[in-house]
Parts: sequence; structure tokens; C-alpha cells
Amino acid sequence: MSPTHRRPVPLSKAYRLLNHGPTLLVSAAHNGQRNIMAAAWAMPLDFEPPKVAVVLDKATWTRQLLEGAGTFVLQVPCAAQADLVQTVGNTTGSETDKFAAYGLQTFKGEHTEAPLLEGCVAWLECRLLPEPHNQQTYDLFLGEVVAAYADDRVFSDGRWHFEGHDELRTLHHVAGGHFLTIGGQLQASSLTPQA
Amino acid sequence: MSPTHRRPVPLSKAYRLLNHGPTLLVSAAHNGQRNIMAAAWAMPLDFEPPKVAVVLDKATWTRQLLEGAGTFVLQVPCAAQADLVQTVGNTTGSETDKFAAYGLQTFKGEHTEAPLLEGCVAWLECRLLPEPHNQQTYDLFLGEVVAAYADDRVFSDGRWHFEGHDELRTLHHVAGGHFLTIGGQLQASSLTPQA
Repeated sequence: MSPTHRRPVPLSKAYRLLNHGPTLLVSAAHNGQRNIMAAAWAMPLDFEPPKVAVVLDKATWTRQLLEGAGTFVLQVPCAAQADLVQTVGNTTGSETDKFAAYGLQTFKGEHTEAPLLEGCVAWLECRLLPEPHNQQTYDLFLGEVVAAYADDRVFSDGRWHFEGHDELRTLHHVAGGHFLTIGGQLQASSLTPQA
Repeated sequence: MSPTHRRPVPLSKAYRLLNHGPTLLVSAAHNGQRNIMAAAWAMPLDFEPPKVAVVLDKATWTRQLLEGAGTFVLQVPCAAQADLVQTVGNTTGSETDKFAAYGLQTFKGEHTEAPLLEGCVAWLECRLLPEPHNQQTYDLFLGEVVAAYADDRVFSDGRWHFEGHDELRTLHHVAGGHFLTIGGQLQASSLTPQA
């Protein structure tokens, strides 16, 4: 994505970047090391201040960096990045720098050391809310969103609008590199109770 | 949905019913009372035994029934039910039985008292994993999936396949009754590291 299209999202609307359940990339950096991984198990946890929940396996290097730094970034990748999402979700960063190995372009956030990946359609900078019992027992990490951004070609005024940008549609992982992409819009109406 | 199309899903594959991030309906029953509500903030938490996480606001009647019963059902509604999802997500069941008011058809599960809503495309019967700190502080509820079912027109062999069934596509709420429906399939490949 060109920075031209990157716009801040008000914190009160940050949950809407995740509300439709896209598969995410999680990045973290600590002591000069950095990593990025895929995470399908993530969700909003509160509106304002916005909070998030994400599951990070004990074996992941990103988790160790995140625990060390106390900060992390959630980013929403798009259809054009499907092979990249599959790749960073199936390789370890503890021995190889994935950013160098796969030529990943990043930019700096305002509140975290974690790299933000170019080409995604949304980014959420987060501060870890330490909950050791959840982390140890369930691999469950909670965070507060401290800044959010989105690509204004597909997200503006609190709404996603992917029409005409199929390559920017969000990814929704099922299993084994098999993804669904997000589809069309639908406005629901409230029903009238039966007499 | 005709029961003809309802098939059990092995517990080892139950997470795949939620992995792509659909908006859910949550139902619970206790002491002869029952309710159903919408929840966009839900995710898988473990593979096997499968676990789930869902956010339930303190004001909701479903939460009270769930806490009383210790069981609940997550169900995956579809595009044909969008108005219904919006309606049960914006009305309270503490004074009116939503099932009667909106003519909702249900069937019985094998492990819970909670009603399972006909017309959804997947159902997960769950046992609450009590975590009082999470429930009080974050409105966050964890559960173990004890049985799962799906409509075999759109889910079989561990995969979703919505082609030819647009009315059965899953719903992904953004805000205010504005939904996205799930789109097409995409198989990703792993990239080769740069030399």
C-alpha cells in the first residue's frame, strides 16, 4: 500500500477493523529482534478504550517478543497477500528473519517497536494487558489498542467497502492455507414481533 | 434448514466452523427460561478438545441464563437470517420470549438445554469453563465444545463451500446492522525464501 492511502482510524471505531472476523498478522519486536506470524483466532474485546484478544501458541517466537516488549501490532492482510500469510504462518522466525527472507516492507508505528507490514488494509498498535493465567492456561493474550490505521480505498467513515478492490478483500482462514475472502455488503432491518 | 442436511461435525474439526470469523448467535436456557442473542466477538480458543471464547455484555439476559445453566450453544447464522440476527441482537429477552415473538423454530441438542435455531448453517453445543475474573473484568466467557453440527450443503469434510448457496453464506457484522457476507475460496501457497 502506498502511504497515500493510509489513514488514522479513530479509536472509537477501531473495533470495526476486526469485527467481521478477518485472519490477522501479529508482529512484535524486542531487543533488536522482530517477527510476524498469522493468527486466525482473534477478536475485539471492548469498544472504548478498544481492547482485543488473540491466541498465540507457546511455540511461537512472536509470543516471546510480545511478552518481552509488552506491545504488539495486529494487522489485517488482504487477498493479494494470501501466499505471504500462509508463509509467515508456517515458518518460524526464531532462526530466520522473515522480513529479510521474504522481502517484506514495513513502516514504523507511533507507539510500538513492532514493524507494521506494508500492503495490509488495516493496522492496530496494541499494548499488552498482562493476564498470566490466561496466557499460560489458554495461550490467550489481551491488549488495548492505542492507535489504528486503515487503507482508505477499502475502509472509511467506519465502514468497509471492497467493491472494485478484490485484491484488497480480507482473508478468512479455514485450514491448511484454504481461505475464504470477504464478499458483498448487506444491510439488515429489524423484524416486527408477531401479534 | 431441513434436518436432512444437518450432519455431526467431528470435534477435531469443530474449530473450522468458527475459524473464518462469522458473526454468531448465542442461546441458553435455565429454569424454564430461554434466550438467544447475537455475538460478533467470538473465536476458537483450542483445537481438541475444542474450546471457544465469546464476549457477552453484562446487560444481556442470555448471559444470566448461561451462567445459571453452565452450558450454551453457539450457532452460525446465514444471509437468509440477516434481519433475524439484527433483531435478536437489538431486543432483550428478559421480558419477551424472542422465540415466540418472532416465530423462531428450534430443535433440541444432545448435551445442553439451550435451544438450537433452525435455519443456521452450524451449531456448537458448549460447556462453560468458569473463569470469574475474565467474566467480571472483560465480559469474556470460555467454553468447551461438546458437540457440533453443520449443514452439509455448505460444510463437509472440514471445508466450507458456499457456491450455489448464496442465501446460506455466513454473516460478518461491521456495525449497526451492516453486514458483509463471506465470499469466494482461495488456496494459498508457501513462498520460497529469497537467497
